[in-house]
Amino acid sequence: MPNGNHAEGPLTPGLVFDMLQAHQRTAALKAAIVRDLFRALAEGRGAVASFPPPCSASERGIRILCDFLVINGVLLKEDSRYRHTPTSAAFLDPRSPSSLASLAQFPGNPAMQEPYNHLAEIIRTGRTNMEGDGTVEPENPVWVQFAETMAPMMAPMAGPLGAIVLEGHNGPMHVLDIAAGHGLFGIEVARQNPQARVTGLDWAPVLRVALDNARKAGVHDRYNMLPGSAFEVDFGGPYDAVLLTNFLHHFDKPTNVGLLKKVRASLRPGGRAATLEFVPNEDRVSPPMPAAFSMNMLTSTPAGDAYTLSELTAMYTDAGFGNISGHPIPMSPHTIVMGHA
Amino acid sequence: MPNGNHAEGPLTPGLVFDMLQAHQRTAALKAAIVRDLFRALAEGRGAVASFPPPCSASERGIRILCDFLVINGVLLKEDSRYRHTPTSAAFLDPRSPSSLASLAQFPGNPAMQEPYNHLAEIIRTGRTNMEGDGTVEPENPVWVQFAETMAPMMAPMAGPLGAIVLEGHNGPMHVLDIAAGHGLFGIEVARQNPQARVTGLDWAPVLRVALDNARKAGVHDRYNMLPGSAFEVDFGGPYDAVLLTNFLHHFDKPTNVGLLKKVRASLRPGGRAATLEFVPNEDRVSPPMPAAFSMNMLTSTPAGDAYTLSELTAMYTDAGFGNISGHPIPMSPHTIVMGHA
Repeated sequence: MPNGNHAEGPLTPGLVFDMLQAHQRTAALKAAIVRDLFRALAEGRGAVASFPPPCSASERGIRILCDFLVINGVLLKEDSRYRHTPTSAAFLDPRSPSSLASLAQFPGNPAMQEPYNHLAEIIRTGRTNMEGDGTVEPENPVWVQFAETMAPMMAPMAGPLGAIVLEGHNGPMHVLDIAAGHGLFGIEVARQNPQARVTGLDWAPVLRVALDNARKAGVHDRYNMLPGSAFEVDFGGPYDAVLLTNFLHHFDKPTNVGLLKKVRASLRPGGRAATLEFVPNEDRVSPPMPAAFSMNMLTSTPAGDAYTLSELTAMYTDAGFGNISGHPIPMSPHTIVMGHA
Repeated sequence: MPNGNHAEGPLTPGLVFDMLQAHQRTAALKAAIVRDLFRALAEGRGAVASFPPPCSASERGIRILCDFLVINGVLLKEDSRYRHTPTSAAFLDPRSPSSLASLAQFPGNPAMQEPYNHLAEIIRTGRTNMEGDGTVEPENPVWVQFAETMAPMMAPMAGPLGAIVLEGHNGPMHVLDIAAGHGLFGIEVARQNPQARVTGLDWAPVLRVALDNARKAGVHDRYNMLPGSAFEVDFGGPYDAVLLTNFLHHFDKPTNVGLLKKVRASLRPGGRAATLEFVPNEDRVSPPMPAAFSMNMLTSTPAGDAYTLSELTAMYTDAGFGNISGHPIPMSPHTIVMGHA
């Protein structure tokens, strides 16, 4: 995050210039991923003349791009040679198991960025300018892309979520994973508890991605698919637990209360619902990442938001849940909110 | 500028997410300017419900936008009320004499931002994807917009530039201002020395903006216009000084040497040429703002760059200048480079 203002320091317009040009950073990171720069650097080709495959990039372009990435803290430069920082090696080298390079295709994709060209108008209307209901339009194909590319960002959250949902419970159980997407959360529950059966709910083309991941994890024989809309399909049940990950932020409060009532009705008495959300503090401006997530919801949905813990607790309560608790996941911008039927 | 990585700290992907979403900052600042948010706040309308004129913005849009600006350090929030930071009051309130809100129309305009949608391709080719030669295409209308909107950013540089060029010289003199734009630099020389005559050179529609500013400054009776291309028009002369501000960065070195030779030929012996430039350190990655400026030149020109002092000195030397010196302007990203004929 950029520096704030320090009352003691002299006033300069640096922060204003910086914001005005911030779009360059997104473009530079995406271009570096497309040009496979982070792989070239990992292979030790750190001198400008050596590392772009000669036909695929110009000396001027690569040099200016690499310098720009150094200025922005994602590369190091020594004696005209570039190399990875620990952060870029971990999260941008495509050979790294924690690589996030695929993210350039979801939050970084043109359809998700286009609304920012019309943000003043979106501020006026208070809702996405995308067709229909934006990303929450039925069968929106962005969710296949989300399922295919966001797994690396969500994978670190799966372990903590599974542990909190199971709480040592290792007997037979049935779990519903609403808006399963890549499926990682339900799959993790199935991995942690070999007697758990998981039903993934999402649009049919998205569930194919989830099933593929279940197969890779060796849990597909305990993975069922329930294709359709969370608002329309019959959940079945009763379930011991329902996962509702990265979902409530797309909708307004009454819609969420309605959905949570439907979730509660599908749970056995004492069963639990677990949401994974970006949960800002009550001031709505900290911590930076969950707080700023509301901007994504403004631009891509009619009425979604990054809800505070008190707002989420109120929705759970209105839907009849009790014993509601928030569990921030360490080192991540996510919080798990649990409620009991 | 975003934080770099601290070897001691745990690795998190925060910096990568931050860059991937940085384009939101540019969009948010522009939207706030379009919605006249910074004026509303200056007028004390700091509660969300109170400050948007009711028909021109939604509560959801304004709230999420204001929170986003707080997160990014350009507003303050207390008890659900928003107010200016010292920086936003000085540089974003349209009533402030140092307001930079008009900048949203130049570096922030769609034509200047469009190349960033194709940055990977620009890296490959090594030159702008704009039509023809981009911003250096003859008669490109962006320069009228530049002249009309960039004056607030350049105004603080005019005083120091005038002082360095004049060095106390207050007798009759004739100054050529190449690529005059808004005209502020030549006008400032005319203000500091009442016996100086200034000739502004630029495209004819741009010079109308400069003449208008000369009139406002009361120096238009000593302001002449020389419309055309700096590469084609006869400079006349001899001049005591030639200003060459924000110009060399658009071109490659041989082109600049050729132009500097033409400048030198138009100077009386001992006359001086003064360029104003973004001059990064020799490492090309510091200070952040002048170093990052090369990205603007990559995306908008065929061969421009942010040149280091040693590169600029070499161009001056190759053009026959002597006694060359660099003068960084305090509290700004700009450096004046002086050479003597």
